[in-house]
Amino acid sequence: MYTISDYLLDRLKELGIDEVFGVPGDYNLQFLDHITAREDLKWIGNANELNAAYMADGYARTKGISAFVTTFGVGELSAVNGLAGSYAENVPVVEIIGSPTTTVQNNKKLVHHTLGDGDFLRFEKMHEEVTAAIAHLTIENATSEIDRVLTIAMTEKRPVYINLPIDIAETKTNKPNKPLQKMTERLTEAEATILSKVEKALQQAENPVIIAGHEILSYHIEHQLNEFIQKFNLPITTLPLGKGAFDEEDSHYMGTYSGSPTEEPLKSRVDNADLVLLLGAKLTDSATSGFSFGFTDKQIISIGATEVLFYGEKHEAIQLDRFVSALSTLSFSRFTGDLLPVKRISKVEFKDEQLTQKRFWKMVETFLLQGDTVVGEQGTSFFGLTNVPLKKDMHFIGQPLWGSIGYTFPSTLGSQIANKDSRHLLFIGDGSLQLTVQELGTAIREKLTPIVFVINNNGYTVEREIHGATEQYNDIPMWDYQNLPLVFGGTSQTVATYKATTEAELAEVMKSARKDTERLQWIEVVMDQEDAPLLLQKLAKIFAKQNS
Amino acid sequence: MYTISDYLLDRLKELGIDEVFGVPGDYNLQFLDHITAREDLKWIGNANELNAAYMADGYARTKGISAFVTTFGVGELSAVNGLAGSYAENVPVVEIIGSPTTTVQNNKKLVHHTLGDGDFLRFEKMHEEVTAAIAHLTIENATSEIDRVLTIAMTEKRPVYINLPIDIAETKTNKPNKPLQKMTERLTEAEATILSKVEKALQQAENPVIIAGHEILSYHIEHQLNEFIQKFNLPITTLPLGKGAFDEEDSHYMGTYSGSPTEEPLKSRVDNADLVLLLGAKLTDSATSGFSFGFTDKQIISIGATEVLFYGEKHEAIQLDRFVSALSTLSFSRFTGDLLPVKRISKVEFKDEQLTQKRFWKMVETFLLQGDTVVGEQGTSFFGLTNVPLKKDMHFIGQPLWGSIGYTFPSTLGSQIANKDSRHLLFIGDGSLQLTVQELGTAIREKLTPIVFVINNNGYTVEREIHGATEQYNDIPMWDYQNLPLVFGGTSQTVATYKATTEAELAEVMKSARKDTERLQWIEVVMDQEDAPLLLQKLAKIFAKQNS
Repeated sequence: MYTISDYLLDRLKELGIDEVFGVPGDYNLQFLDHITAREDLKWIGNANELNAAYMADGYARTKGISAFVTTFGVGELSAVNGLAGSYAENVPVVEIIGSPTTTVQNNKKLVHHTLGDGDFLRFEKMHEEVTAAIAHLTIENATSEIDRVLTIAMTEKRPVYINLPIDIAETKTNKPNKPLQKMTERLTEAEATILSKVEKALQQAENPVIIAGHEILSYHIEHQLNEFIQKFNLPITTLPLGKGAFDEEDSHYMGTYSGSPTEEPLKSRVDNADLVLLLGAKLTDSATSGFSFGFTDKQIISIGATEVLFYGEKHEAIQLDRFVSALSTLSFSRFTGDLLPVKRISKVEFKDEQLTQKRFWKMVETFLLQGDTVVGEQGTSFFGLTNVPLKKDMHFIGQPLWGSIGYTFPSTLGSQIANKDSRHLLFIGDGSLQLTVQELGTAIREKLTPIVFVINNNGYTVEREIHGATEQYNDIPMWDYQNLPLVFGGTSQTVATYKATTEAELAEVMKSARKDTERLQWIEVVMDQEDAPLLLQKLAKIFAKQNS
Repeated sequence: MYTISDYLLDRLKELGIDEVFGVPGDYNLQFLDHITAREDLKWIGNANELNAAYMADGYARTKGISAFVTTFGVGELSAVNGLAGSYAENVPVVEIIGSPTTTVQNNKKLVHHTLGDGDFLRFEKMHEEVTAAIAHLTIENATSEIDRVLTIAMTEKRPVYINLPIDIAETKTNKPNKPLQKMTERLTEAEATILSKVEKALQQAENPVIIAGHEILSYHIEHQLNEFIQKFNLPITTLPLGKGAFDEEDSHYMGTYSGSPTEEPLKSRVDNADLVLLLGAKLTDSATSGFSFGFTDKQIISIGATEVLFYGEKHEAIQLDRFVSALSTLSFSRFTGDLLPVKRISKVEFKDEQLTQKRFWKMVETFLLQGDTVVGEQGTSFFGLTNVPLKKDMHFIGQPLWGSIGYTFPSTLGSQIANKDSRHLLFIGDGSLQLTVQELGTAIREKLTPIVFVINNNGYTVEREIHGATEQYNDIPMWDYQNLPLVFGGTSQTVATYKATTEAELAEVMKSARKDTERLQWIEVVMDQEDAPLLLQKLAKIFAKQNS
């Protein structure tokens, strides 16, 4: 029998989903049967629901969309922080909640995983705040609601929530008779008006700068952006929230712009531009070191999926993918001024000295290879990586707006499952690793082979920089990072573990890790608890002020 | 300077809180300074926020109330499932959220840990669904709002939420000039009316049975309940959701009633009572094996903090603590029929055979000592423990209504911190342990000494019983449970680890573990993946039907 479950799974397949994450619970087990029965979908069980949400987020960033399954109440609330992160940073994730039967819900039964008050809509209501759409499936609405919310996920690049009661999941229905509706490429009248205003501004600008942001990554329109940049020879930078949106080896790329700590000459070049054209970018505090950018509303045109601003004046938001595609059709003169390509280092003369943050990120720069996916946890890692120039065809994942510590470990695994051909490099601190460490079991079971750098600096260094450098609350229990993968099911067949405290040791480790492509590489890097990348030191001072 | 932070902490101390849990974040660091500055409060940092919420829940169950601190957005949403569990099962937990300054919030700044839309009230709004009260502190309302929500937490025994912007936390105020208002002991008119109706029913009943539930534990009124039972010589049972509410060694106690699987003669005794007086009890599906109780509305009077029912008719809810205290003032004849004391075993002849669930729980029964606190995870453990009779002065913690797997590990640690004099025994399956395992680091750092039985049965056995016995989604990665505590900072000085696969091995381990009171006892118990306690086998069949 072809059921509503099958319909939903066929639609997920249609969108390119090959793996589904989640945690089983008695309200979703029957739905899971439909997944495991398929040859073309793989169930990947997670250690807990928050990790499932993070893993789905990483998968979606790389593959375009993802899905995960939780059970009603306990499961969905455990995951909700992950979903909120996907909402904040425009990542399309589909959460499917297996809920009690319609009969149980309608009769307000006091069943488990409820608050014991017969109200089955509370959790759904909570999710309205952090999703782009909610569907509560019934026999009548199931197929149309599934289509509606999946279309929203794809067009808005934001998470959606599907409440699937057990009996509805098992109800007979028909296969989809046509594909999900695709966004038309034709601009709306409002979009055309905005486009011509952008054209006019570009025609008048003598010294324009493009700033690309994270929505370019959400819509996977790096190619369209590149076409625009190449055609008009425009100088471009990205925000840290959006790093990877443009090929950092390309001559048009000038480096990552992060407000006042940005190094010269990039800082002046951006701040003094007569037009700052933001594409899919948001000037958040962590992306701009506490709003310390040196340009003003008078210079800014901002075109984004969630906001459009002309010199401080808000316009209706546009559909970013078709809008950016249309930029190449504009008519204005190619930029003829100087470009500002990024300076790169190809080799570091390492010493037999204690590792420092400053030297570590230089060594990392020389370690990167074309095609890698680099993930930076929102601590010293993200800020260390911000100014490491990427190579061609590299992907970058971070979460600087939502900034939920622990996010990157499951996210890296999800992204690697989505793109097994790209070597994944994760940089994460000990404090952050604590939150989601149990997903090591999943990594090992799935035979994933990321290179994980665990920065052991004895606690929350990012917080020490902001406040309470030596306070007890910034300490964490010291774990045995070397043996961690081994208790989660790892063996010498599946995991290689290393420890580096000096530059020379790290150089050795890096050599081995890069060659060993068949095993998970687990590298403990020891650094001082009060050592931080320069960018973080500067930003922390600004944040401390923002917090007073 | 005496600040609003100090006022809040003074109030928490007044309510009996000595330890505060949580995870630091840059929006709460300054508030944490006020905690670490005090001699009379201890900060206990957690590995993640959900674990903090669970730990606070366990602490509150034992100590009467608890508090934990998270940061805005990411922290609070990670914890919300724990708070929802406290709401469902009536546990008073105070969550304090450190949020951005009033200036940042009022100016709708695009700061980190927001959805990037300038809306700072979304998460607070979400919490309305799972808390008894919300306070958003301002200079004007801070002290009165703190007093209001803490009073609600204490009278309703439910979680409350305090949003504390950084600048408000640091604002000067005066010390409290009088204690928090205590609940008057005088019954309201409505309560007096209900009391006299209960009296009349008891006067007429020839064969009454009392069923105590979890709200007796929430209000810590075991003593008042006992006074009532002893005075009128009444036969009493508890639901699994409420186990521990009455001394199970007392002659008035008849065993745990769990619907149709309840063993005879208890089952008939309860089902055939002419009055079933429920006190602080809820007839939920997991507590009654899918509503399979053998009595009807015509027999039931239910007196609870969240509902009052007379023979199916709803009345206004009452204040449970003063109401139960008043029960001893009633006038009706002492019960003179037979009581039904629980049969107990004092010794098990163990064999050199593979451990089974059936034999394991018998061995556990003989292992328990007066004064222990026993915690049962919502899997085979909870259902195995349901029919293990407790000893005098024992405490029991489970979470059968909310049923969030992983809950009991941090909860056990929280409860042990609240009552270090009670040996804590946790029974948890491998599947559940996965979700919250990183709190081992906290257990070791805090030198806690629970006896933890990790039931290694290769996955989610509770789910295998309900659906998909051999399905892949009920499998989990196999971890090295023996060495787990050692990577989280444990050493032979702080942790003893054991493994038992036979009865004889378990008997040996139990002997050692009981004597070794200075170290955490970590006992891996291996059982078959499809072996389950009889009660769970029966309940699982009923749940499978409820889910179809």
